[in-house]
Amino acid sequence: MLIVKKFGGTSVADKERIFNVARRCIDEYSKGNDVVVVLSAMGKQTDVLLAQAKDINPNASKRELDMLLTTGEQTSVALMAMAMNSLGIPAISLNAFQVAMHTTAAYGNARLKRIDTDRIKNELANRKIVIVTGFQGINQFDDYTTLGRGGSDTTAVALAAALHADACEIYTDVDGVFTADPRVVKNARKLDAITYDEMLELASLGAGVLHNRSVEMAKKYGVQLVVRSSLNTTEGTVVKEVVNMEKMLVSGVACDKNTARIAVIGLEDQPGVAFKLFNHLANHNINVDIILQSVGRDGTKDISFTVAEDAADEAVEIINRHREGSLKCHEVDVEKNVAKVSVVGAGMMTNAGVAAKMFEALYDCGVNIKQISTSEIRVTVLIDEKYVDVSMNAVHDAFSLGK
Amino acid sequence: MLIVKKFGGTSVADKERIFNVARRCIDEYSKGNDVVVVLSAMGKQTDVLLAQAKDINPNASKRELDMLLTTGEQTSVALMAMAMNSLGIPAISLNAFQVAMHTTAAYGNARLKRIDTDRIKNELANRKIVIVTGFQGINQFDDYTTLGRGGSDTTAVALAAALHADACEIYTDVDGVFTADPRVVKNARKLDAITYDEMLELASLGAGVLHNRSVEMAKKYGVQLVVRSSLNTTEGTVVKEVVNMEKMLVSGVACDKNTARIAVIGLEDQPGVAFKLFNHLANHNINVDIILQSVGRDGTKDISFTVAEDAADEAVEIINRHREGSLKCHEVDVEKNVAKVSVVGAGMMTNAGVAAKMFEALYDCGVNIKQISTSEIRVTVLIDEKYVDVSMNAVHDAFSLGK
Repeated sequence: MLIVKKFGGTSVADKERIFNVARRCIDEYSKGNDVVVVLSAMGKQTDVLLAQAKDINPNASKRELDMLLTTGEQTSVALMAMAMNSLGIPAISLNAFQVAMHTTAAYGNARLKRIDTDRIKNELANRKIVIVTGFQGINQFDDYTTLGRGGSDTTAVALAAALHADACEIYTDVDGVFTADPRVVKNARKLDAITYDEMLELASLGAGVLHNRSVEMAKKYGVQLVVRSSLNTTEGTVVKEVVNMEKMLVSGVACDKNTARIAVIGLEDQPGVAFKLFNHLANHNINVDIILQSVGRDGTKDISFTVAEDAADEAVEIINRHREGSLKCHEVDVEKNVAKVSVVGAGMMTNAGVAAKMFEALYDCGVNIKQISTSEIRVTVLIDEKYVDVSMNAVHDAFSLGK
Repeated sequence: MLIVKKFGGTSVADKERIFNVARRCIDEYSKGNDVVVVLSAMGKQTDVLLAQAKDINPNASKRELDMLLTTGEQTSVALMAMAMNSLGIPAISLNAFQVAMHTTAAYGNARLKRIDTDRIKNELANRKIVIVTGFQGINQFDDYTTLGRGGSDTTAVALAAALHADACEIYTDVDGVFTADPRVVKNARKLDAITYDEMLELASLGAGVLHNRSVEMAKKYGVQLVVRSSLNTTEGTVVKEVVNMEKMLVSGVACDKNTARIAVIGLEDQPGVAFKLFNHLANHNINVDIILQSVGRDGTKDISFTVAEDAADEAVEIINRHREGSLKCHEVDVEKNVAKVSVVGAGMMTNAGVAAKMFEALYDCGVNIKQISTSEIRVTVLIDEKYVDVSMNAVHDAFSLGK
């Protein structure tokens, strides 16, 4: 078997943790398996480097930032190889140049295009554990690039796809994917399995132990993902195409507190006014979610939508800038103490009544629903942030997701 | 003009110094010149990385050590590019992969074989300052290598040779090459020029502001070197093939306190016994200097020689290990409080009497000469370490080297 294992920065933050990871990988190797390890930079190293750069030049070019940041993973893979060697196991570290991890040109947020597997395969054939720098690539100019948020997960999945690995294990500080955040819902249960689509919905809802891009790539190439703990040997959660869903109507409940609702009230009802509104925001890379349009007084429109809370002020400012021109309206309100609560489940596609059951649970505990949004496998409601915990628990119970 | 400038770790140890170097390079660039900058790792960064490695694995493989150490220069070149950019000057950092700095296979002590200049030339053609990682290369396996001591100087000279640069400036914390160590000889004078051969003799005698390998390479490819201060704009010392030597019999006086004398007394006079002695030492990479062989009592031989002081104990141990076998002798003595004092000058080749003048100066101040060694352009004497300062001054005065 060929296994790709990815460990984040926390898992390699110091000597003790490096050896902990080394031993885990050696256990796998000792079973006769081929092991490829993908690592992030140690602990907060990336933040340290970013601060160093900012001190020199607050507007440093992304090209040079990537040149700087890629030293972080190179350090961790070299130290990991040393640790494994000291335990008597042949291991070799490789960076993005050595693997030849080709990406698009975009510094700071590149996409993987193609991975050469020759070097890795040769090293594996020599029975070495191969340790690869996550998060980084090289572009057509032979410059370093980085893959943006969740980049190391993407590296691991891409390597697993390119090498036709039998599994791609993403190690994290939780035991796997849960039916809800265990800090909020006491009887939350670890899921043995979940579909790619469910994982995508959960990730985008802030429950994400995996970044969307890595899940999308895993789905595209059929890479079986396992999310598991680097702290214990619990089995973890398998993410795959089809999961046995017998009674599993809903897989989990997620929430996202990083949400604000903006209401544009009394919009002059010109043709294409909604398009103009969202186009202005899109031009500033502000993502809009849960849109509600209603008829206001005097032939005007009201449009409400949610954005990430930290983008709310900028969004309001952009709208205000156009109130004299294309976005004539009476009022722009922003409400920051709101949150999204969602139920996610591939079973919804074939089972009606999920939304109704969710609304009933919320009604029973007196939570008012401000807006609703649905997809094939998700129902999301916008509520007051103060009701998040009670809502999560109520919905979790309603679908009998607990232990 | 195309100028290669090399700055050591001290010159880029912090933000202020990085900007200091950036401004110096920009001054050159602003004259319309093409500028290639070679940097070492910041301050003590290489030592920090080595300590980190040692903590994980005291016997880390040289391959992985090089993978780790090369992050040091990559960090400094990226930060330098950011600093130059913040001053409004286009600059780009390149590592050994990006330049394609081909070396021999030997990790930790590789030799440069070939440098691809296309990328650098293209960036220069776009009027960018090009900042290159010193000390590092890549070998035929696409692995990082490092060039050993003085490696960044070698990188700079090799780049100057490959790019047919008009000059290669090595920036250091002294004003140039002096007739003697100014800390010992108060009226020591900065030399305007010195030949490659003199520089080589001085470097090997511990007066070295430049590593031998870089001087050898400069001589081989006719690269005009300039040693100058990174702290002021003094002209520095030019190192080249031929220097106007009119009255310059001697260029400088150097000393080397890292010396020990080993005496092997009463060696059984078998054929090839000297060969055997030095062969044993060579097999352990111990360099031997100033050899004196004399006839001892009862048909035996005495052989004295010097080694680096820190290699003395190992040398004695090696000899003792063979005293029952191929190196039967009465006694092995080691004397550590000795030092070498040398006069160096290309003028010696055509002028007799240099050695005599040196010996007279030492005799006049009562210093006993223990051993003597000469080359075409150097006379070296071994003396008690406590007489080093008085000897240096006496010899410096005898040849009228002062201001």
